Amino acid sequence: MSRTEEVELTNMCMICDGRGNVLVQDKKNHPTWHGWNFPGGHVEMGEYVTPSVIREMREETGLTIQAPRLCGIKEFHKTKEGKRYIVFLYIAEKFSGELKSSNEGEIFWYPLCKLSSSDKLIDGFGEMLQVFTNDYISEIYYDRQGDDLKTVYC
Amino acid sequence: MSRTEEVELTNMCMICDGRGNVLVQDKKNHPTWHGWNFPGGHVEMGEYVTPSVIREMREETGLTIQAPRLCGIKEFHKTKEGKRYIVFLYIAEKFSGELKSSNEGEIFWYPLCKLSSSDKLIDGFGEMLQVFTNDYISEIYYDRQGDDLKTVYC
Repeated sequence: MSRTEEVELTNMCMICDGRGNVLVQDKKNHPTWHGWNFPGGHVEMGEYVTPSVIREMREETGLTIQAPRLCGIKEFHKTKEGKRYIVFLYIAEKFSGELKSSNEGEIFWYPLCKLSSSDKLIDGFGEMLQVFTNDYISEIYYDRQGDDLKTVYC
Repeated sequence: MSRTEEVELTNMCMICDGRGNVLVQDKKNHPTWHGWNFPGGHVEMGEYVTPSVIREMREETGLTIQAPRLCGIKEFHKTKEGKRYIVFLYIAEKFSGELKSSNEGEIFWYPLCKLSSSDKLIDGFGEMLQVFTNDYISEIYYDRQGDDLKTVYC
């Protein structure tokens, strides 16, 4: 019996400057899904997960992060294909290099304590933010209940 | 372009009793791969990752764990198929219920500080243990370099 399944693997990282600010990306390269987000992207075929988040941060922020810490995951099943989608969520508190935006969107430092109340957040980001900031939450997923999706933290 | 790939998803958990002991499983249900290990198993199709570790702990230890914390991952590519294998590694410090072994293997409490020096550990377990015990390590993977596999922590 095969125990494998089709999974789309992605990463995202909250980079902290040690003074209460985190690196936000104003995502603009998607026709409908845009707004404030943390930088991130896909884990490529054959690439490992933690190296992938280091690469993405370099590409999207110009920074080389050190010792990113896995703090949780976001997960859902894409309804049409039934495929699983996993976002590996990291926190990085050490980095080097010069800040540089990419064509994924402009990046800038923003106070973490004000982030959740911003009206510029990308859809779903405010909910996900809790996994980064609450040590007792390891996962957010969306449980389908009939036509509704219920947000579950665990 | 499809961004999905074939992945085998599993979980493992270090359950701590708050007095320096962790729950060890003496794995015996596999013909060649046996020894001391932490309990764990597969994430089933359609199941979410954190609920899967709660279910596996109930099945293999009798305990109902609360608020398991994702502390890292183990990852490798199965060479023949090229498929990715991910173990989600959790720590649980709260639980209820009565200890009960399963046919996966006998379970027992053992001092964490003595575990890494035991000669009864299952192959690869000693290396993986560092992801559970070191806050600065989020992942262990095996990098293929010619005929050799190099253990990488990140």
